[in-house]
Amino acid sequence: MNFTDKLQKAVSKNNSLLCVGLDPHPFQGVSFKGSESLLKFNQRVIDQTSDFVCAYKPNIAFFEAAGLEGLEALFETISYLKNNFPHLPIVLDAKRADVPHTAKMYAKSVFEYWQADAVTVYPHLGLDSIEPFLEYKDKLTILLIKTSNPDSVMFQDLKTPEGPYFLAMAERIKSWQFENIGIFAPATYPKELKVLRAIFPDKIFLSAGIGIQKGVVKAAVKAGTDINGTGIMFNASRSIIFNDNPQKAAKNLRDEINKYR
Amino acid sequence: MNFTDKLQKAVSKNNSLLCVGLDPHPFQGVSFKGSESLLKFNQRVIDQTSDFVCAYKPNIAFFEAAGLEGLEALFETISYLKNNFPHLPIVLDAKRADVPHTAKMYAKSVFEYWQADAVTVYPHLGLDSIEPFLEYKDKLTILLIKTSNPDSVMFQDLKTPEGPYFLAMAERIKSWQFENIGIFAPATYPKELKVLRAIFPDKIFLSAGIGIQKGVVKAAVKAGTDINGTGIMFNASRSIIFNDNPQKAAKNLRDEINKYR
Repeated sequence: MNFTDKLQKAVSKNNSLLCVGLDPHPFQGVSFKGSESLLKFNQRVIDQTSDFVCAYKPNIAFFEAAGLEGLEALFETISYLKNNFPHLPIVLDAKRADVPHTAKMYAKSVFEYWQADAVTVYPHLGLDSIEPFLEYKDKLTILLIKTSNPDSVMFQDLKTPEGPYFLAMAERIKSWQFENIGIFAPATYPKELKVLRAIFPDKIFLSAGIGIQKGVVKAAVKAGTDINGTGIMFNASRSIIFNDNPQKAAKNLRDEINKYR
Repeated sequence: MNFTDKLQKAVSKNNSLLCVGLDPHPFQGVSFKGSESLLKFNQRVIDQTSDFVCAYKPNIAFFEAAGLEGLEALFETISYLKNNFPHLPIVLDAKRADVPHTAKMYAKSVFEYWQADAVTVYPHLGLDSIEPFLEYKDKLTILLIKTSNPDSVMFQDLKTPEGPYFLAMAERIKSWQFENIGIFAPATYPKELKVLRAIFPDKIFLSAGIGIQKGVVKAAVKAGTDINGTGIMFNASRSIIFNDNPQKAAKNLRDEINKYR
């Protein structure tokens, strides 16, 4: 089954556009009770939220920070999801990018070894660096055109004769004929999200930052959903997984998103 | 010891600007004789070339492609280098980049877990995404301003009122006051390498592609070295590690580079 179909089924089943980011923070300690391991932390979050999400998005950085043991926990987390919730797609937030023959290795890693359903990738190296990912037709390769951090304006909004750099980039990407390209755009910049949705009316979007910034939900949902009120995964990480009650937090955020679809 | 001093000592000891890329290709099979593992492959390359290099640069993609076993081989390769050749700096070619609180996790991974002396990072997210790496003062954070692949022109050379995008980016990075920033620029684009060297006369450069494209050595050395004929690591991977005689290939390339310093 290709990613679009898998996501659509999950969206329908749980009536949700919420994606939960599995970013356990192994060094702050705040969220880890006793000897709870990275895996157990993830399992608890998954068990409590699986009825309210359309996807999970582990960010590999949080596992790499704990070295090989952390990556083992990622492997086991993915196995746990595949075995118990095979209907929920897994977006591996890996933000990879390299020249073509190396990009091929990253694509092999994320899709064959980690068995992710989708991956995040930077487009700044051009199409030849993205093609090794796109060869996996049933997988979604999500291009990070505009990121959510404050300093993203520094280079991504750099002026060009066609407007800010990220828009000039988007206009070129629009001409790439691939079904399995997704688009990342931040919920914290609803204006930019709206412009990107207009450029890519039919693409699946991934959007982040909805859980952190208060009052952003309405604007982000209006800006980011497609013509059918779907076609986007709104990711929240810390506001769900470090909440005392991840279940309630996920249900509430799902419902708030649905209010504006 | 900080990276600059460590590199300078290695450059002097081996009279070399050659960096060898440890990119074992576990799936083509061509270079692996019998059951030779990734680690053994790397050890053989290291043993044969250690007198002719100023640094080693494992690209983590080639290890990730083999999953946890591959990453174990990377760990053991780094341990082997640290134990036997502690004077040779290790550049982890990881090409990471993420928003600040996630970049912190990547920085922790590459410098604390993998114990690399330097790392490659994309600057496209802006300074706040780079700062977590720069906090490791003794380590070098190498910014990929211009890559070596053909399609790099697509976005990196996009026109802005200040010239191509990568140059407008470089001019801004120039104003960042950090001693421990390095610059990546491809040997395959000697013109661009020269322009970047002019913008960053005192920075340590990493340059790639010198081993693949015939006849590029002279132009790249002239363009990329600093005022003292040093300050740059010229990386070669496939042309050395898959050569029937890595020792001879490394010595020859080192000597050819030195001819033009």
